[in-house]
Amino acid sequence: MPLVRIDLAKTSTPELRKAVSETVYNAMTEIANVPQHDKFQIITLHDSDQMIYPAEGYLGVSYTPNIVFIHVTWVAGRSTDVKKAFYKKIADDLHAKAGIRKEDVFIVLSDTAREDWSFGGGLMQYAPK
Amino acid sequence: MPLVRIDLAKTSTPELRKAVSETVYNAMTEIANVPQHDKFQIITLHDSDQMIYPAEGYLGVSYTPNIVFIHVTWVAGRSTDVKKAFYKKIADDLHAKAGIRKEDVFIVLSDTAREDWSFGGGLMQYAPK
Amino acid sequence: MPLVRIDLAKTSTPELRKAVSETVYNAMTEIANVPQHDKFQIITLHDSDQMIYPAEGYLGVSYTPNIVFIHVTWVAGRSTDVKKAFYKKIADDLHAKAGIRKEDVFIVLSDTAREDWSFGGGLMQYAPK
Repeated sequence: MPLVRIDLAKTSTPELRKAVSETVYNAMTEIANVPQHDKFQIITLHDSDQMIYPAEGYLGVSYTPNIVFIHVTWVAGRSTDVKKAFYKKIADDLHAKAGIRKEDVFIVLSDTAREDWSFGGGLMQYAPK
Repeated sequence: MPLVRIDLAKTSTPELRKAVSETVYNAMTEIANVPQHDKFQIITLHDSDQMIYPAEGYLGVSYTPNIVFIHVTWVAGRSTDVKKAFYKKIADDLHAKAGIRKEDVFIVLSDTAREDWSFGGGLMQYAPK
Repeated sequence: MPLVRIDLAKTSTPELRKAVSETVYNAMTEIANVPQHDKFQIITLHDSDQMIYPAEGYLGVSYTPNIVFIHVTWVAGRSTDVKKAFYKKIADDLHAKAGIRKEDVFIVLSDTAREDWSFGGGLMQYAPK
């Protein structure tokens, strides 16, 4: 049920984009209780002047044009501890598998309700009983 | 007041995109109590490797590269029954009018409050009394 | 902490885009209690048939192909008065500094919780105590 918007540089390689996609999906299923095959993502590429971050950094974190924005829309209910582990897993794995600086991994989560999703067919698959 | 983000394939025709736009708007006004002329939509086109869906399908639904993501941001308050009818209407009409597979119609709804909208002019048109 | 999605026309100039970026950031820090350097924005450009608005206008506001969509995702908590001032500041400044019609400034706000953000490094910088 998550829909993940991934925004990154046009200069990123297809291999890197694939690594981001797989890493986010794996973190979801392994840590955030997302069901297997629940993998819906939209990737948008940007010129360098279309991804804005503070040149001075923020909260001690510094960024480069290789910043990756990961915006997850999902059903509410994950605990703070799960969210913490989710952030760490994504940054660690993107660093290990795709060589992305951990500081360039920006993540935001947006909550919705179960009835806010149709996975196709015009149905509300998560309808309340 | 809804802002609708529609993400679909670069290979889609302008006619199909127009049909999606009109169909979503019509479903909103006919079923979800959205006022006439309240039609704000952003369409973004993607290469096939930039719209990710599970190859195995999910919850018995299968997808193709013609998947259409419809992400509605609007004011909270629609009932579960209205949402169900809204999903069905969009999928049915996209199939009938544009030949889109119903299973390729993915919809997610995000709630906001009335004061979260400015429709132009720097004003909060839906300000509380 | 806000992540701002700015969608505007491909025909906009880089200077105008920069003015939008700076204006939104300044309104946030000056009016909406956003910390300095908390500046994260994603700009996406669109063909004219990919930004849909009502030809008839809405609520007495009329739009042109130069419409600018500003979608702010941030942490909940701003008052209605702050939001009103925020809308006004952005529209006024975009008009004064970039010549944008105030009516072409469309703004929507989406709330999240503090724990929904990772500003890099795999950390939850706004973790509860």
